[in-house]
Amino acid sequence: MPAAYATVRHDGREDLVAVEEPLEIRVDGQPLAVTMRTPGEDEELALGFLRTEGLIDRVHPAGLTDDLTANTIEVTGPLLRNPGARRFYTASSCGVCGKGAVEEVAVASAPLPPGPLVERGLLGELPARLVQPGFSRTGGLHATGLFTAAGELLLVREDVGRHNAMDKVVGRALLDGLVPLHGRLLCVSGRLSFELAQKAAVAGAPVLVGVGAPSTLAIAVAEERGMTLCGFARGDRVNVYTHPERVQGT
Amino acid sequence: MPAAYATVRHDGREDLVAVEEPLEIRVDGQPLAVTMRTPGEDEELALGFLRTEGLIDRVHPAGLTDDLTANTIEVTGPLLRNPGARRFYTASSCGVCGKGAVEEVAVASAPLPPGPLVERGLLGELPARLVQPGFSRTGGLHATGLFTAAGELLLVREDVGRHNAMDKVVGRALLDGLVPLHGRLLCVSGRLSFELAQKAAVAGAPVLVGVGAPSTLAIAVAEERGMTLCGFARGDRVNVYTHPERVQGT
Repeated sequence: MPAAYATVRHDGREDLVAVEEPLEIRVDGQPLAVTMRTPGEDEELALGFLRTEGLIDRVHPAGLTDDLTANTIEVTGPLLRNPGARRFYTASSCGVCGKGAVEEVAVASAPLPPGPLVERGLLGELPARLVQPGFSRTGGLHATGLFTAAGELLLVREDVGRHNAMDKVVGRALLDGLVPLHGRLLCVSGRLSFELAQKAAVAGAPVLVGVGAPSTLAIAVAEERGMTLCGFARGDRVNVYTHPERVQGT
Repeated sequence: MPAAYATVRHDGREDLVAVEEPLEIRVDGQPLAVTMRTPGEDEELALGFLRTEGLIDRVHPAGLTDDLTANTIEVTGPLLRNPGARRFYTASSCGVCGKGAVEEVAVASAPLPPGPLVERGLLGELPARLVQPGFSRTGGLHATGLFTAAGELLLVREDVGRHNAMDKVVGRALLDGLVPLHGRLLCVSGRLSFELAQKAAVAGAPVLVGVGAPSTLAIAVAEERGMTLCGFARGDRVNVYTHPERVQGT
C-alpha cells in the first residue's frame, strides 16, 4: 500500500507530512473526476465517491491501472445517471465537483427512516473515540468514523480531504454490505459543510456529528433530508441542530 | 451587503452560523464555475478566482445579475486561455475544479523574485494578527490575510471555503493594483494544501504562512515555484519547509 506519510526535512530536522496526490477516477475508460487525496484506499475512495454522488448504488469492479504512478483508477459502469458533460474535480477539501449550474449542486437521496435513538452524552464523546493515527503523526489529515448507535467504532478513514475521508468510509461500507447506513452514526473531525451533510444523507446515515461548526446550508440539507445534525461535539457538550427526535437525555 | 451569518435556533437557544450558499461565476454569459461560499464579497471572489486560476491578469468588469437570489455573478472576458470543456465546481473547501486530467491540475505561474527578508519571529506571530470577526462569532469561517514584510495587516477576508478566503484577498488586491503580491506575505488560518500553495504562487506571493500542517504536494509546488512555505505558525515557533533564504533570525 502506498505510504500515507512522507518524511520531510526542514529547519535542520525531519517530520512526517501527509501525502497529497491527484487521483483520476475513470468510468468505462472515460475520465470522470480528479480528487486530491492521500493514497492507499483508492478503491474505497472511488466507490464511495460514486455512491455519495448518486452515481452507483452497489459495488462495481474497480482497479488501479497497471501504471501506479499514473494515479488513475478505473471503475466499470454502468452509472445510475448520466453525468453528462460535467467533469468532477475535487481538491483536497472538496466533494461535489464539475456541476455546471447552481441547481445541480443537489444530489437526490431516499428519505431517511426514523431512529436510532442515541444518548446525547454519547454524541459529544464520539470525536474522542475517533482514532486518528495519521493526524497524530502529521497534523494534516481529516478523519471520518462510522459508529453503531451504541457508540462502537466500526471503521475510520483519514485523508487530506475531509470529503475523501467520508467517501472512503462509505466505499468501505459499500464493499462490506453496510450501505445504506441506516441505524449508524457518522462522525467527522472538522466542520460541517453542505457537501459533507449531503454525502452523509445520500449514504443513508441518520445522524452526522462534527467536532466543528455547521454552515447554514449544512443545517438546511440535514433538516430537509430528515438527518440529525450535531456540531461542536466536545466531550461533555454537543449542539443538536436538526431532528432532535433521535436524541435522548440531557 | 448580504449577511455572512444567520441566527439559528437549536437546543432551546440561538447561535450565529456562517452562511454558505452557491455562487455561479459566468464569463461572457457562459457558466464557468460554481463555488460554495459565504456571500458578501462576490466581485472580489470572482476576480480572485479567475486570477489565481491563471484566467485573467487584470481587473475585468464584474457584477451580480439583477436577480440576487440567483447567486450568479457575471464577468466580462476575454480570458487569457480557453478553459475549454472544463467546468469548475468548488465546494466549500475546494479551489481548482473541473479539470479533467491529472496533468491539468497545475496552473502555470511566473517565477517569484527574491525577497523580501522576513524575521522568523514575525512569521510565527502572523496568525495572531489575523483578525477573524466571523470565526469569533460562528466558529465556521476560514481566513486569509495579506501582510507587508514588516507584518502590517493590509486586508483580511473570511469564508466557509478556505480557497474562497484566499481568492477574495487576491481579488481585492487585484482591484487595488497590488497584484502580483511581490514583497508581501499571505497567511491562512488552516492547513496548507496544494491548491492554496498554488493559488498563492500564481498570485505572486513570495511567502505563505499557515497555522496548520502542509501536505507533501503543497511543499513540492512551493519548492518548485520558489515560494517560502511556513506551517504550524504558533506564536513563538514556525516550521519553514521551503526557500528559507527569505527567513532571517532564529
